[in-house]
Amino acid sequence: MSGSSRPRLVMKFGGTSVATVERIRIVAKHVKREIEAGYDVAVVVSAMSGKTNELVAWCNEAAGLYDQREYDTVVASGEQVTSGLLAMVLSGIGIKARSWQGWQVPIETNEAHGSARISGIPSTNLDEGFSRGEVAVIAGFQGVEPKSGRIATLGRGGSDTSAVAVAAAIGAERCDIYTDVDGVYTTDPRIVPKARRMDRIAFEEMLEMASLGAKVLQVRSVELAMVHKVKTYVRSSFDDPANPNPGTLICDEEDIVEQQVVTGIAYSKDEAQITLRHVPDKPGVAAAVFVPLAEANINVDMIVQNISEDGKSTDMTFTVPQAEFQRARDVIDKARAVVGCDIVEAATDVAKVSVIGIGMRSHAGVAASCFQALASRSINIRAITTSEIKISVLIDAAYTELAVRTLHSLYGLDKA
Amino acid sequence: MSGSSRPRLVMKFGGTSVATVERIRIVAKHVKREIEAGYDVAVVVSAMSGKTNELVAWCNEAAGLYDQREYDTVVASGEQVTSGLLAMVLSGIGIKARSWQGWQVPIETNEAHGSARISGIPSTNLDEGFSRGEVAVIAGFQGVEPKSGRIATLGRGGSDTSAVAVAAAIGAERCDIYTDVDGVYTTDPRIVPKARRMDRIAFEEMLEMASLGAKVLQVRSVELAMVHKVKTYVRSSFDDPANPNPGTLICDEEDIVEQQVVTGIAYSKDEAQITLRHVPDKPGVAAAVFVPLAEANINVDMIVQNISEDGKSTDMTFTVPQAEFQRARDVIDKARAVVGCDIVEAATDVAKVSVIGIGMRSHAGVAASCFQALASRSINIRAITTSEIKISVLIDAAYTELAVRTLHSLYGLDKA
Repeated sequence: MSGSSRPRLVMKFGGTSVATVERIRIVAKHVKREIEAGYDVAVVVSAMSGKTNELVAWCNEAAGLYDQREYDTVVASGEQVTSGLLAMVLSGIGIKARSWQGWQVPIETNEAHGSARISGIPSTNLDEGFSRGEVAVIAGFQGVEPKSGRIATLGRGGSDTSAVAVAAAIGAERCDIYTDVDGVYTTDPRIVPKARRMDRIAFEEMLEMASLGAKVLQVRSVELAMVHKVKTYVRSSFDDPANPNPGTLICDEEDIVEQQVVTGIAYSKDEAQITLRHVPDKPGVAAAVFVPLAEANINVDMIVQNISEDGKSTDMTFTVPQAEFQRARDVIDKARAVVGCDIVEAATDVAKVSVIGIGMRSHAGVAASCFQALASRSINIRAITTSEIKISVLIDAAYTELAVRTLHSLYGLDKA
Repeated sequence: MSGSSRPRLVMKFGGTSVATVERIRIVAKHVKREIEAGYDVAVVVSAMSGKTNELVAWCNEAAGLYDQREYDTVVASGEQVTSGLLAMVLSGIGIKARSWQGWQVPIETNEAHGSARISGIPSTNLDEGFSRGEVAVIAGFQGVEPKSGRIATLGRGGSDTSAVAVAAAIGAERCDIYTDVDGVYTTDPRIVPKARRMDRIAFEEMLEMASLGAKVLQVRSVELAMVHKVKTYVRSSFDDPANPNPGTLICDEEDIVEQQVVTGIAYSKDEAQITLRHVPDKPGVAAAVFVPLAEANINVDMIVQNISEDGKSTDMTFTVPQAEFQRARDVIDKARAVVGCDIVEAATDVAKVSVIGIGMRSHAGVAASCFQALASRSINIRAITTSEIKISVLIDAAYTELAVRTLHSLYGLDKA
């Protein structure tokens, strides 16, 4: 912590919020408001929207299997640009500011280039900046691997994680994630017009929402906020900078006074299902399936395996992202000889719909009412997984919207 | 120097040579040829052509008077991208390579952000790379100011300077500057189709050619090559990579066997002339004119002042780049009160044509024949400046091409 007695604030702006220099001027107005409210501010910025895609496309064109360290070098340049531009715009309206690249802060990471994890953020440099009265404009998404001194990036959406990690490192009072939506909704408002913006959501719930396809925040940023208890707001950079909405606070469960049983309905259409029939019911079989998938870097999501009826064989169902479906099939076809299962059934026209709520822990019957409601709409459930605070069902993709709407009103989430 | 006994080579590729990933693949083929010829190679790359302009435009849009350090942060990102992409492409064709940013090498600079000078390049990191058998792909144009740890850029064309400085630092056998022309010509081939590509040109001559508008190389790179005696070739990246032309060698005067009296004709249309009449002939007057211009960061080129006839007053003519003409006039209008001169005459439709050759040192009559030839074509000379190896005349811009052609054949430079 610095000698400055001003409270600290981290503000993060995503790609659409810094898409043009004109948009960056509006970001500067948001920053100005918080400076005038008495904060020392660190701003974390993404690349201008579209820029990262352009850079990634060049990498893909350059080489089939590229060195992730070079990918990081190329792609991190997008955030470098916006950090410099925002520092210029802030100085232009009379606010002292300087840009910080990941290697300058430094934001130290592990060696997992392309999806690195932050290992530490020494705050000395930022502290000194605050004591000079400077806004720190930090390039998001990027850090430096200290041993090699090479640029490392944090994976798609990594700027959220940068923001929360900086907030923890500098002891910020809160971390405001500015995006193109004004908060976290009970479900996707494009599907359910009656979806409500939540004032608060618990970290655990947000984690499920984020990992289940409500693409508001990178999952790791929520984990990090939960571990370090960083009060994180999701709010809109498209609000009037002079009078913005507060957005949704992601906070500890205890800070939510009126806890509902179900807080949100999430869905993901990016699912493909693979089912193995007559899988021998003996030790090591699951490993024989999932180790090769992990080695191929395929992200397996739902895994369902029943107790076998005859004690000899069982069925096993799992889902993978659609983009990895073909690779997953190839891996499984090779593994079949070892596993000894007969048939592989697969479907790519499936969706996962999830009911999320911390209140479920203490309320029985949530799952039952979910299955009943879907049945009453003739929606067939292909697979089910549950956790303490979530129920996920895999259904035919064509029923996604109907299922989301049905569950959203079933649990009383529709706007009054 | 490393433990490797292979000779070293620096190859520099400009913006048009790396304009697309397809072009970068051709660059990689040029690099491969030199690796196979037995060299340890350091490649210095510019930004993709057009990218720097895009970045500069954003800076100008962001703030009227921006912080040069932020400008450097934004603009240096262009070279970062190409360095990563070329390293990927090289690895893709089986050549070990890694990218190096200015701060990673490090290429240390002074504090003059925006047009910084290189103060040192410790070669340890590059040496280690060579001993691992890696091609070093270095982002040109950029370095780091060691005290602040901030990115500094070397000014437009700075990648040439990066290349020559790296060549000096690593003890390279030569430095090949690949560009979109295949060498240095006796004059602009678009004006004189009979212009010849030179096999060799002396550093001093190249310095004059470069500073007089033959935009092949950044002037500072030539100075640096001269000081450190770096054998520098200008050659084309558009040649067949399997069988390229050698280009033009810029070398010590002594290495040129058949020295001609005149080696080239350069011209610049980017000139504006300002003449002060009846300037008092007393000490301090020149300072009163040129100090304010320097303070306004206006680059004054030709300065001509005659001995006064009456011992009381004289005339003074100088030229500035056309883009700075209006600012220069404003500065001079203010300075007139102090200087005490009567009239300011100005012209923007002027051009400078120069005859360059080290051989002039030992040959009388070059200037006389130049003036005579121009007179025979009825070209009026507005001002003359000379150095040991160059004669420059300021003429009406309309006569530029005629003057260049006349002088080119006068001194026997036309192709046989």
